[in-house]
This record gives sequence, C-alpha cells and structure tokens, in this order.
Amino acid sequence: MSSLLVDNIGELVTNDARPGDPLGVRRDAALLVEDGEVAWVGPARYAPAADRRLDAQGAAVLPGFVDSHAHLVFAGDRAAEFAARMAGEPYTGGGIRTTVGATRAASDDQLRATVRRLHGEAMRQGTTTIEIKSGYGLTVADEARSLRIAAEFSEDTTFLGAHVVPAEYADRPDDYVGLVCGPMLAAAAPHARWIDVFCERGAFDVDHTRAILAGGQAAGLGVRVHANQLGPGPGVRLGVELGAASVDHCTHLTGADVDALAGSATVATLLPGAEFSTRSPYPDARRLLDAGVTVALATDCNPGSSYTSSMPLCIALAVREMRMTPAEAVWAATAGGARALRRDDVGVLRRGARADLMILDAPSHLHLAYRPGVPLIRQVLHNGVPQCPH
Amino acid sequence: MSSLLVDNIGELVTNDARPGDPLGVRRDAALLVEDGEVAWVGPARYAPAADRRLDAQGAAVLPGFVDSHAHLVFAGDRAAEFAARMAGEPYTGGGIRTTVGATRAASDDQLRATVRRLHGEAMRQGTTTIEIKSGYGLTVADEARSLRIAAEFSEDTTFLGAHVVPAEYADRPDDYVGLVCGPMLAAAAPHARWIDVFCERGAFDVDHTRAILAGGQAAGLGVRVHANQLGPGPGVRLGVELGAASVDHCTHLTGADVDALAGSATVATLLPGAEFSTRSPYPDARRLLDAGVTVALATDCNPGSSYTSSMPLCIALAVREMRMTPAEAVWAATAGGARALRRDDVGVLRRGARADLMILDAPSHLHLAYRPGVPLIRQVLHNGVPQCPH
Ligand SMILES: [Zn+2]
Ligand SMILES: [Zn+2]
Repeated sequence: MSSLLVDNIGELVTNDARPGDPLGVRRDAALLVEDGEVAWVGPARYAPAADRRLDAQGAAVLPGFVDSHAHLVFAGDRAAEFAARMAGEPYTGGGIRTTVGATRAASDDQLRATVRRLHGEAMRQGTTTIEIKSGYGLTVADEARSLRIAAEFSEDTTFLGAHVVPAEYADRPDDYVGLVCGPMLAAAAPHARWIDVFCERGAFDVDHTRAILAGGQAAGLGVRVHANQLGPGPGVRLGVELGAASVDHCTHLTGADVDALAGSATVATLLPGAEFSTRSPYPDARRLLDAGVTVALATDCNPGSSYTSSMPLCIALAVREMRMTPAEAVWAATAGGARALRRDDVGVLRRGARADLMILDAPSHLHLAYRPGVPLIRQVLHNGVPQCPH
Repeated sequence: MSSLLVDNIGELVTNDARPGDPLGVRRDAALLVEDGEVAWVGPARYAPAADRRLDAQGAAVLPGFVDSHAHLVFAGDRAAEFAARMAGEPYTGGGIRTTVGATRAASDDQLRATVRRLHGEAMRQGTTTIEIKSGYGLTVADEARSLRIAAEFSEDTTFLGAHVVPAEYADRPDDYVGLVCGPMLAAAAPHARWIDVFCERGAFDVDHTRAILAGGQAAGLGVRVHANQLGPGPGVRLGVELGAASVDHCTHLTGADVDALAGSATVATLLPGAEFSTRSPYPDARRLLDAGVTVALATDCNPGSSYTSSMPLCIALAVREMRMTPAEAVWAATAGGARALRRDDVGVLRRGARADLMILDAPSHLHLAYRPGVPLIRQVLHNGVPQCPH
C-alpha cells in the first residue's frame, strides 16, 4: 500500500498531550500515512520519503471528530414540531413517538438512505467516527434491523430500545422493560457494541434503567446512559455505579453527581445542540472541567431535539455558551469522544492511530469557534483515504 | 442565451408575498431562467420549454441571501483576541486598530485575496448579494483602495472611513472627521454606493456622525449607520432623520427609537453573529417586528466581533435567540437584506428579478433553523449561472 505524506501543516493538533499542552500542538510538523494508519509524526525537515504528498498549504490539521452520540436511524422529520417549539411549546420528548411510527413504516432501504445521507454529511464536516443508536423501532424486529443498518456505517452501534415506552405499552411499562431485557436485547446484541437508556422522568425510571443496563452488560454490551437532561435525577450516579463509558447530557447536576463523575472513569458527554434546538439552559461545563471530570462533546443528531450533524457548531456553542476554551472544546470533540467510546485508536494523531484527520480552511483550531457556522473543513482523511472534498 | 428550467421543486420561496404568506411559498412550481433573470414562475405543469433543466429533486428553492452588512477588506485575523474575549475580556471595539495596522501594511493583492476567499465562502453558503464596507484603511489612499477592491466583487460598496478614529488622530478627532468629510470622501465616493459611520461611545458622536453622513449624501451616497450596538444612543434616530436605508445592530433601543423606525422607511438590520461572538445580549427582534419595523438579518462578517460569513447561522440564531419565526428569519435574510440595500432586483424570485437562488439539501426553508450548523446549500445560481457546488 502506498504511503502519503501530509506536510506544509501550519498547526498540527495531535492530542498526544505534553505537560501544559493537552492538544499536543506541533508546528512545522508533517505526518506520514501508511496502511490507513499514522506511521510517523515529526518535524517536517525529518519527514521520511513517501509515494504521494498532500500539501496542507499552511492550514491546521486535526484528528477527525469523534461524535459519540447520534441517532441516525429513523424516517421522516419533525420540522413543524421544531417550529412550534420555537414559538413557545416546551420540549417533552413526546414527539419521539412520531418518529417511531415513521421509522416502523419505512423500508430498510429508506432507513439506510437516511443513515448514508447523515453519515456523509457528518464526514464532510470532519466527523470520522460516529456512534449510531437505535431507538426509533421499539419492536424486536425494528430495533434489530435498525442496528443491522447502523452497523453498516459504524463499529460503535448502540441498542437504545429503552428510548421511550412505545404507545402500545403506555399503560404497562413493566411489560415493555421485560421485552427490552428479553427478546429485544437478544435480537439486538449481535449488532451492537453498547446499550443505552433514556433515564428521565417520563421515560425510564432508575429501577427500569438499572435492569436494562445490567441485562445489556450480561449480554456483553458496554454501558452508556442518557441522564439528567430535562431535570435532576439518578441517571448520572447510576451510570457511574455501573461503570458506564459515558453519561450523556448532564444538564442538571447536583454536587453529588459531579463528585461521582470526578472519582470515576465515566465521561460526561455534553450535547449543546440539544439545548440550542430546544432553547434550554446549557450544562455547566466549567464546573465539570474544574472538578477534573473528562468531558466530551457530541451532536445528539436526531430529528426531534437536535437535528444537527455539525461538530464545529458544538464547539462554537461550547465556547460561547458553556465557557469552554477553544482548546478544551476541540479536545472534547476529538479525544473526549474517543474516551466516551473507550477507543484509543481514534481522536489522536500518533504512530499507530487510525489516519483519521481533517485539514481546515484556517490556520488554527481556534477558527472552529472564531468562525461559527462557516464550513471550515477543507479535506477529510478516513482510514488514510481522502474523502470527496465538499 | 440558453434558457434553464428549474423544476421538481418541493417548496419554492419566492418572497412574492400574498396575503398571510410573506414568503410567497409555491408548491409544485417551476422557474425559468433566461439572460440571468427569472423569466417565468408558475405551476410545473405549465412550465415552458427550455434548453436545459436543473432538477431540484424535491428540495426547497429560495432566493439567494442578501447580506447587507459585511466588512471583507482587511488583513490578518484576531483569533487570539477572540479566545481572550471568550475567557472573559469584554469587547470594546478597540481591537479594530490592530486590523487597521495589518490592512495598511498589506498589498492590494493580499487584500483582494481575502475578499475573494470570503466572497466565495459566502456564495457557497447561499449569499448572492453582499455589501462590502471599507473601514480598515483610514487614510485617504487606503480607504480608496479598499473600496476599489470591494467594487470588484460587489455593486454595494460602503465608505466607512468613520469606523474608528485611527491612533494617529486619537487626540484630535475633529481633525479626523474633517479628513473623512473632505479628501477621504472625495477619494472614496467614486467607488462607493453608500456611506456609513460607527456611531457609538468611543467611536463617533452624534455631531460627527451627522456631519459625515450629510457629507456623504451631498456626494451622492446613500446612508447607513452602525447604531446602538454597545449601548443606547442617538444613532438610530439620526439614521431615521437622515432617511438611512438601514440602521444596523439595534441592540439597545428605547421606545422612541422603535417608534421612529416604525414610522419610517429605514430598515433595522440585526447582526446576531456579533452578539454570538462577543457573548452579548441579543437585540429584541420581536419588539421591532411587532411594532411593524422592517427587519433584515446580516452577518457583520469582520475579523473582530463576528468572523462568520454564514447567513444560515444568522437565521438559526434569529430563531433560537431572538424568537423570530423561521419564516421571518428567512424573509429578513433575503427580502429584508434587499430592502436594506434599497434593491428590488434581488431577494425575490419573480419575473424580471435576478436569477439569484439556492437549492437546499432539505425539503423546506424551516431546515435552515431546524438544522443549525449543517451546510445545507446544495447549489447556488448567481445571475442564472450555477456556481461550483461545494
Ligand atoms: Zn440522545
Ligand atoms: Zn459592522
């Protein structure tokens, strides 16, 4: 396989941390790609010979974004619900059932086309790793096919049968939890790496959440939790107790929640696109960072509460609204996402890592926050392969 | 010249208003382009024959954005100042002088390259008309060349010699105003359509602003004003008094300001990118709209306080932060911008208008707010000519 040298890099963000420099920024650096991996990183003047050369033209080069929270398998959209919410209706999560109906009615090819479209859209915006959840099927067959289709696009697929109690189980949620823990999990597990529960008032309570997550663990799945989005609750602490890789949203936290996270290996994944699109208060990222919690940023891409696939938008919101520094936000959107997925092969540019990277139309990672809304991703390499430029 | 039929349009936003429908939305419509103009709009089944066809594939088609407020002629960037501000330093406008120094030191070709880059970036995001201001030269020669270069890219060039008092005149602002009204205006006017003043505490007071704007009017220029951005002040009322096409920012308004606007032909141009990037409170768009004021949205693209060229971001912020409806925001970013530039040939798709339009990667204009940060512009036609797809 041929080798590719990326050089003339203005600023190389490696996430290969050095004291005082969590982004591991290198100047005058070059990077060699071989067999889809990073084969060498070092000063440009020592760059080894390569078959081909990719001139970064003085721009910034970063690891590809790792979007650790996305709901891409669904049908239909909820633009009218969005407009109504912006005119004053609150977000309750109730609209999820609208998407469940559309998803069940869709063909495999229709679902696949939506995942392909959103996956491609994310890739053009620098996302080279994206977790994909089920959760709009909510029958044994529809959850299994959602995950089968998700697995065509991602190694990080997540079984979210416990997204909402479907209408047909509205008056017997215990029965639905039994279904999720039993036949649905059995059908889903072969296609999933993770299990997730929407632990929230109106969705699944702490006992149901515990039962489902424990069932998933017994089936070999790793744990993640939608927790503390709409109000305070037990989700974050339960996630930490179960050794979750990540607890996601973390919008309403108590001191005990923050302490639990700080003493754990569980990542707090913040999803500011959801607060943006539901006009809700943002999580307190500074409190988490100052307590030593590992923070990730992800899109929560879904047709109800956050229909964005844009990690650059999440970075801009993290800086503007959550007072993260641009460096903290970029780290959280790359290395932080990798931690949230317990992966050490992505989110970093060092020898042996996947050659997943982006070249910006900008000289510095700062521009991702400094230039909000602007499509700044000039080129993306995934597994060392240049993607179609946008 | 050959004709082009745009058809299979899912939703055509014409801005050719009908009662109760300011966007003039048509379904099952087609649009014929000839000689760079819209030659026909009507139901697809009555579409005339054409030499070529552009299939919109069921997507939404809108008039190109009209960005009526942009500062594109400068050198350097201020990413470090941005990061410092996000870490807590307030925005005072003082950093403008940093850019003035870099702009004066730049060659014509360097300035031209920056305008070309930002102009192309805006076009890829759907902007087919963009006003371009001078204001980082602040000498007779540097203002004149800024406008000469701006005029290579836009018909709507604005002389903003009164952007800030340059350092060399810091202790004699009256002398600087004399320069602006005298030799600088004389050198700028042949290359400008508009005159503008940054009327703000710390920049130009009401007497200076009046003198400069009156001088510009006498030289045949139309009036626009940067007003009431950082605090309350006389700028809005002065603009209305002088018949300004637009007063821009309008962040701090009194009842008298709103009343003056409501009884006038002056547009209130809101620039939410500036509030986003300076972490400032947003203008009260609802108060203006409810009072019957004509509202435009623009980017304020500049390297200090709003380094975005993204009209879709402005729409998303207008909906999320200023409680405009998606329809109001889309109108303000198209027809509103055209009003702010006193143009009736753009911002609208009807027979005789310029064939400036965009095809979205989405079925409805709602998606511009519903899908924040996502590059949703699939194709742009400018003067009827398809631009390079992004
Ligand atoms: Zn989610
Ligand atoms: Zn401005």
